[in-house]
Amino acid sequence: MILADRIAAARGNTLPDLVLKNATLVNVLTGEIYPADIVVHGGYIVALGPGYEGRQTVDLGGRYVCPGFLDAHAHIESSLCTPPEFARMLAACGVTSVITDPHEIANVYGVDGIRYMLERAKGAPINVFVMASSCVPATRMETNGAAVEAPDLAPLLDSPWVLGLAEMMNYPGVIYGDEGILDKLEAFSGRVMDGHIPAVSGRELQAYVAAGIMSDHECTTPEEALEKLRLGMTLFIREGTTTRNLLPLLPVINDDTWPRICFCTDDRQPASLMDEGSIDFMVRQAIAHGVDPMTAIRIATINTANYFRLYDRGAVALGRRADLVVFSSLHDLRPERVYRDGVLIAEGGVCIAPSAPPPTAADRPSMNVKPGALDFRIPAQGATIRVIGAIGDQVVTANRTEVATVVNGEAVADVSRDLLKIATIERHHATGQIGLGFISGFGLKRGAIAGSVGHDHHNLIVIGADDASMQHAAQAVIEMGGGLAVVDGGSLLGTLPLPVAGLMTDAPMAEVRRAYDALITEAHGLGSTMPDPFMTMSFMGLEVIPSLKLTDLGLVDVEAFQLVDLFVVEGVQ
Amino acid sequence: MILADRIAAARGNTLPDLVLKNATLVNVLTGEIYPADIVVHGGYIVALGPGYEGRQTVDLGGRYVCPGFLDAHAHIESSLCTPPEFARMLAACGVTSVITDPHEIANVYGVDGIRYMLERAKGAPINVFVMASSCVPATRMETNGAAVEAPDLAPLLDSPWVLGLAEMMNYPGVIYGDEGILDKLEAFSGRVMDGHIPAVSGRELQAYVAAGIMSDHECTTPEEALEKLRLGMTLFIREGTTTRNLLPLLPVINDDTWPRICFCTDDRQPASLMDEGSIDFMVRQAIAHGVDPMTAIRIATINTANYFRLYDRGAVALGRRADLVVFSSLHDLRPERVYRDGVLIAEGGVCIAPSAPPPTAADRPSMNVKPGALDFRIPAQGATIRVIGAIGDQVVTANRTEVATVVNGEAVADVSRDLLKIATIERHHATGQIGLGFISGFGLKRGAIAGSVGHDHHNLIVIGADDASMQHAAQAVIEMGGGLAVVDGGSLLGTLPLPVAGLMTDAPMAEVRRAYDALITEAHGLGSTMPDPFMTMSFMGLEVIPSLKLTDLGLVDVEAFQLVDLFVVEGVQ
Repeated sequence: MILADRIAAARGNTLPDLVLKNATLVNVLTGEIYPADIVVHGGYIVALGPGYEGRQTVDLGGRYVCPGFLDAHAHIESSLCTPPEFARMLAACGVTSVITDPHEIANVYGVDGIRYMLERAKGAPINVFVMASSCVPATRMETNGAAVEAPDLAPLLDSPWVLGLAEMMNYPGVIYGDEGILDKLEAFSGRVMDGHIPAVSGRELQAYVAAGIMSDHECTTPEEALEKLRLGMTLFIREGTTTRNLLPLLPVINDDTWPRICFCTDDRQPASLMDEGSIDFMVRQAIAHGVDPMTAIRIATINTANYFRLYDRGAVALGRRADLVVFSSLHDLRPERVYRDGVLIAEGGVCIAPSAPPPTAADRPSMNVKPGALDFRIPAQGATIRVIGAIGDQVVTANRTEVATVVNGEAVADVSRDLLKIATIERHHATGQIGLGFISGFGLKRGAIAGSVGHDHHNLIVIGADDASMQHAAQAVIEMGGGLAVVDGGSLLGTLPLPVAGLMTDAPMAEVRRAYDALITEAHGLGSTMPDPFMTMSFMGLEVIPSLKLTDLGLVDVEAFQLVDLFVVEGVQ
Repeated sequence: MILADRIAAARGNTLPDLVLKNATLVNVLTGEIYPADIVVHGGYIVALGPGYEGRQTVDLGGRYVCPGFLDAHAHIESSLCTPPEFARMLAACGVTSVITDPHEIANVYGVDGIRYMLERAKGAPINVFVMASSCVPATRMETNGAAVEAPDLAPLLDSPWVLGLAEMMNYPGVIYGDEGILDKLEAFSGRVMDGHIPAVSGRELQAYVAAGIMSDHECTTPEEALEKLRLGMTLFIREGTTTRNLLPLLPVINDDTWPRICFCTDDRQPASLMDEGSIDFMVRQAIAHGVDPMTAIRIATINTANYFRLYDRGAVALGRRADLVVFSSLHDLRPERVYRDGVLIAEGGVCIAPSAPPPTAADRPSMNVKPGALDFRIPAQGATIRVIGAIGDQVVTANRTEVATVVNGEAVADVSRDLLKIATIERHHATGQIGLGFISGFGLKRGAIAGSVGHDHHNLIVIGADDASMQHAAQAVIEMGGGLAVVDGGSLLGTLPLPVAGLMTDAPMAEVRRAYDALITEAHGLGSTMPDPFMTMSFMGLEVIPSLKLTDLGLVDVEAFQLVDLFVVEGVQ
């Protein structure tokens, strides 16, 4: 019996698998830091004390040992890598458990996409837990790959790797009691339910929390965070690639609130993960800005374990899994050795676990565009057009109106005014649906960029200076089965294939990062002034974030929450 | 849909059931105390904020509101009252949830006894959760009512009121991997498992904690408590009627350890409950001795809720049950109003919930003594006898040897030397088994006392100055179907019938307390110098607590963990 074996190892009657000698233990349960030997057997910590010998004994020479970090909320798809490769990166960062919401792939393949992520995670060197995606599709003003309703989600609870219901982004649906939404809340009652409710307060927030939703990762100010903490929510402090909430929210962390706070990354691109890190980066940043190291480590470990009811991890304590991070400095915490279940998975900031073999089955096609649908012509139906005002590095846009540039009865791009054409092409069901419009802020002087990453429906989005370049770019993405492309007229300047659902690749993250950087360089070469035109483009179709967006069904006025015409009827705004 | 209804009440579109206006909220989640209105609907807290009106509105005039207290570990049987009456007492103390281990009645009726407590708890005004009794019988050196093994316990997990495995008192069985014990741990793996491991440290303690046991309530010193906290155990600080660990353990409570500490009462008799209180008493004591009120209240509420995974209580926060305590002073916390699920159950220290009707079915007989088994004669088989050295108000005894007083070839009681006779009579299966011995410390000059409360086997224990009185006392207990009695020769001086398993009564606690006090007075009238001879007597048969005890199988040398003869063979000790 394995349990008897662990007990015998603790008693000293069985040689344990591993003994980490001369550790300086960061005990997140008592808040103490003291010398200890850590005894591991069968993947669990079975003793903390001197005098044990193991099959393998490692002398840590006084280095610190804290629990493996947990990321409370992450979308793996944002790394453009599949779970095994994403996990290898996180292992190097000391993150041994990540709680993911696979809602990007769920928007392409529905619940099959969620099951795909669960399946691929099995080969990963760290623990990848899944929260069932709650808002697929985001709204009815778009066409996504599949709708996911309560009856689709409930069976997921049979998996020990599914912890609850993922961020409930449709907060109006909760607040005003939409039945489909309530069905999801009922289906997951008694389980963990994550929230997503930016900048809402007062009675609407009260209604949302009263519904049983337990956390929020959208706070940007201490006031917003404190209001949610007071009502009973757990605060997830987020530090993504573009959404940087850590430093603004540090004032919320104090001796009373710390047990109710977790760290999460939400969306991190390869460059951020490789150059900064993951949760380890948040811990370093918090400590560098005055948070007590014990508090920062608790927020990154035991708090998240407690919130997600993962009682077998989050602390270096008996009966818990031996997920451990070894490091030398509390004030510049760099994971030197990382263990998962007592197995060394990373050393010196590099994952030493083998890459998981790519799946034998071919990737399921996801680029299903109606042949001949790439017609970007816009007959002029008025003098004034609505224009999406994109802003560098931001997911929100301005909703502007401008005079159209009309040539031969068609509204066309006008690079002299940084007026580019944008198209959102339905790519899941070959409906032939295409949304057309104009956008400013990208700065392309010629050529086009295209991508199959377009939150959350992930239709094919193209932005360009001329229709020919746009067609070429879109065609390139379709032909490679999904991905990103930049073209100049007839010449293909760069691509990044994303064969998995048009969102991810099995390629190593370093390769992905190189290819991605090259794409940005090419786009800048075409005149783009956007720091990352591909990231920004991927949010130009997200109709739940203000102000003007373009789905395959057309322009969406987010404040009015309705589809609107490209051409503004004179006198009407 | 109830959920929709709660959301609507929070939103302000449905009139909530109850609004507590002008409260001063003790927010155990943020550590803040501030003015708030508390809005309750459908038994849950749905909003915290001004401007709500309710079907019922109560103006608290600024009084404090904290969560209802939770008792982390209690044996209801120690109150001599059945669950409904015990619960009415706790309601008056502000305890809205109690986690019980019914191992006393389980020793009489086996798993049926546990189910009986679950059944009777349904009529109680507070929440009575059960932990499955893990050590029935205590050892094989006794005869109890029934053995309870893993297969008997596992089905209990189907009940939402059963939270896990109760205090694992057989720590040698855990440490040395007894198979029956490991079966129980396996059967409850993934659930809460409580511990009980007094004064054990080092590797034996490590083995016990490595087995997955999560808490301990037997600590008596800060050093002992800190060792267990460091290994990962949650510390239950206990303040029973006789076991008083609160003040000695206060030094363990600090800004780092508080989230890992809970309060429990374990065993409290009617007098302690009525004169001191329950968890409310511990909170008052802790605060009076310097613990920050917020910390004391957290230990009495959210910590216990978190430990037992009762996520729907323990804090005054949205989505949690409206279990509330209203009081006026942080430094003398007296529950003035107590709510359970938003219903007022106690006011001014008195439970206003109706008494539950006693069960229609007659109490199942539990006094099954072989007719004519009451023969207390002890033929002299030597000059020296082992004597149980009882100590007032303590459950431990001395293991002494004395010269026997022999009359007509029989060893007899000798009040001139405070040498009384003690008998433990098997009362479950009419086996006729009887253990006989001698005991000092009770001080009876004449007469006898008897009781069917005899931890943990609960056989019939009698202590007396002469055999006739002992027989009369034992007979009285048998005839009343279980209970306590004091006699003087042929006259019955007092009784307390305990018809439920010979352990409890449905009578009101005040009556029980009066009858119990009268019994003690009568015993003192017979010369007893024991503060509470009945309580002390009830532990004289408990063969897992040092040093010399008497079960129905005979004298047990607890250190040697074996049965020993009454007469000491000369030269052999």
